[in-house]
Amino acid sequence: MTTPRADQAAVEEAIITRRDLVNEAIPDQLPIIRPERLYEASRYLLDAGGKRLRPTILLLAAEAIADADPLGEDYHAFPAPDGPVDVMSAAVSIEIIQSFTLIHDDIMDDDDMRRGVPAVHREYDLETAILAGDTLYSKAFEVMLETGAPAERSVRALSELATTCTKICEGQAFDIDFESRSAVEPDEYLDMVELKTAVLYAAAASVPAMLLGDDDAVDALYGYGLDIGRAFQIQDDLLDLTTPSEKLGKQRGSDLIEGKKTLVTLHARENGVDVDGLVDADTVEAVDEVEIEAAVGELRDAGSIEYARETAHDLIASGKSNLEVLPDNHSRDLLGGIADYLIEREY
Amino acid sequence: MTTPRADQAAVEEAIITRRDLVNEAIPDQLPIIRPERLYEASRYLLDAGGKRLRPTILLLAAEAIADADPLGEDYHAFPAPDGPVDVMSAAVSIEIIQSFTLIHDDIMDDDDMRRGVPAVHREYDLETAILAGDTLYSKAFEVMLETGAPAERSVRALSELATTCTKICEGQAFDIDFESRSAVEPDEYLDMVELKTAVLYAAAASVPAMLLGDDDAVDALYGYGLDIGRAFQIQDDLLDLTTPSEKLGKQRGSDLIEGKKTLVTLHARENGVDVDGLVDADTVEAVDEVEIEAAVGELRDAGSIEYARETAHDLIASGKSNLEVLPDNHSRDLLGGIADYLIEREY
Repeated sequence: MTTPRADQAAVEEAIITRRDLVNEAIPDQLPIIRPERLYEASRYLLDAGGKRLRPTILLLAAEAIADADPLGEDYHAFPAPDGPVDVMSAAVSIEIIQSFTLIHDDIMDDDDMRRGVPAVHREYDLETAILAGDTLYSKAFEVMLETGAPAERSVRALSELATTCTKICEGQAFDIDFESRSAVEPDEYLDMVELKTAVLYAAAASVPAMLLGDDDAVDALYGYGLDIGRAFQIQDDLLDLTTPSEKLGKQRGSDLIEGKKTLVTLHARENGVDVDGLVDADTVEAVDEVEIEAAVGELRDAGSIEYARETAHDLIASGKSNLEVLPDNHSRDLLGGIADYLIEREY
Repeated sequence: MTTPRADQAAVEEAIITRRDLVNEAIPDQLPIIRPERLYEASRYLLDAGGKRLRPTILLLAAEAIADADPLGEDYHAFPAPDGPVDVMSAAVSIEIIQSFTLIHDDIMDDDDMRRGVPAVHREYDLETAILAGDTLYSKAFEVMLETGAPAERSVRALSELATTCTKICEGQAFDIDFESRSAVEPDEYLDMVELKTAVLYAAAASVPAMLLGDDDAVDALYGYGLDIGRAFQIQDDLLDLTTPSEKLGKQRGSDLIEGKKTLVTLHARENGVDVDGLVDADTVEAVDEVEIEAAVGELRDAGSIEYARETAHDLIASGKSNLEVLPDNHSRDLLGGIADYLIEREY
């Protein structure tokens, strides 16, 4: 079965309307209270923007499960067998986790910019950034506990959130480890991406099934999230190579300069490309566009860009096939459309 | 009511026997798996020692509630109305949280040593230390979910754990903020200590009541933990001034050198002591013992040391008075004895 293709404009509109609702809910769940500087720093990246893809997927999965009219229901009192569930709290919780990982990752990767603004450890300082991430971490658990779901279901969602966070840390540790290794297998890379990136998509997609009591949908939605999350990361790596710097919000090819391993470079290395010699510059400041263009050309000639694109495409198709467990409704179509969107987006 | 005074040797033995059981349980709950370097770093401080006071308090509170023979029960299958509860998992969870906060605090405070070994960011590196703390954070939630308690009770314990972590972050933020402020009221200091230190004692003491279903004991045990936790921190500040460096495991008076605000220095400032001028040295390397001794003498003459001691004593008395809600048994006496121990310990 292939899920019917949702109209791309409808998908983009679905993302934007849900993003706006998530943006309204964030300040309610995470108000700026004393100590203000800590909560301001905790909110800094959340307020700087973001597409809210993970919470949007969570809300759409809830709609599809409940077979509800998209946006016809109040996300704070979503229909479930044992009484209404605040799926918006779950959505905000997932976005808070995402924001916590960005803050700590930027420290670990020594990145200066994020979402077009300085990273939190640059805008504030190292101490505040560590602490802001730590605050978001526990807040995500507090907020996930506010759905009003029966205790058994809350426990299941909480457990998923905790193991997800552990896996994200493991993924980041593998990613850091890969930087100092010369040889990494593509499968090892995909395992790392699963941990670092995809499990949060999987949690976003499956948590509403846990909270709403649709046990049959949990595994399928988890699989959907895992596949599209991996595809999302591969697309991110591709965009770093193929999108102009202005559009990307950072130097194009910065992964190459930093020697970051991606599916593209791992494939290229396996196919005889001298990946380490592709770019001479050691810093994003020292590189010029001609050098990047030549490097990307070599990767394209080796078939590495096409290989990554195909891998991402296959993952999206696999992810979408999981959706047939859901009732056939417009929200399900939109979940399929978001999957396509993840590898069609240009930034 | 005053809880009968437990024999000091019995208290110390109770701490040691439970510490050993906690030490056995930690590797089971936190095995060194892949990625090994991450889990080794996560275990590094846990394996370096520690008195396990918080988990010991949790286990003793469980014993007192169940009115069980001390150590007569298996902590992994502790008697509760709806079936056995693994209170050891809860105890380990609390110790894991403590360890996570130490790792991140040492980064924030730029401390080099902890428990006689290099801080995790010194033994490993900044990235690994941040990530090790983050891993422990979610592991604590995973482990707290493994008690086997009914879902309603697990949710309550999980919620307590999450709000406790948020408060610890708030406390640390206030502590950092105080460093750059000239005037801090003693009450503000005590509020900070409540958040940064005491709430974890309160969680340790009250979580077993939540898990075992003794609703009447929850608030009283929380109050016990809050009072003795505050007293513990005041005693820590006193020990920094009065304990020889060899015994302390770090330079005596280092708080004075670093300009850290404590109840002692806040009282001294209010009573006309030029606290900032007490020690000329800017680093622990540059200070000599004579200078520290003179500074402590001035604080003593101002009555500030005695003031902090009395405050800690009053808190211990108040904390112990909460224990009368528990059945009158030996474990309750030991909880009272641990309270006394916290301000009688010499390191």
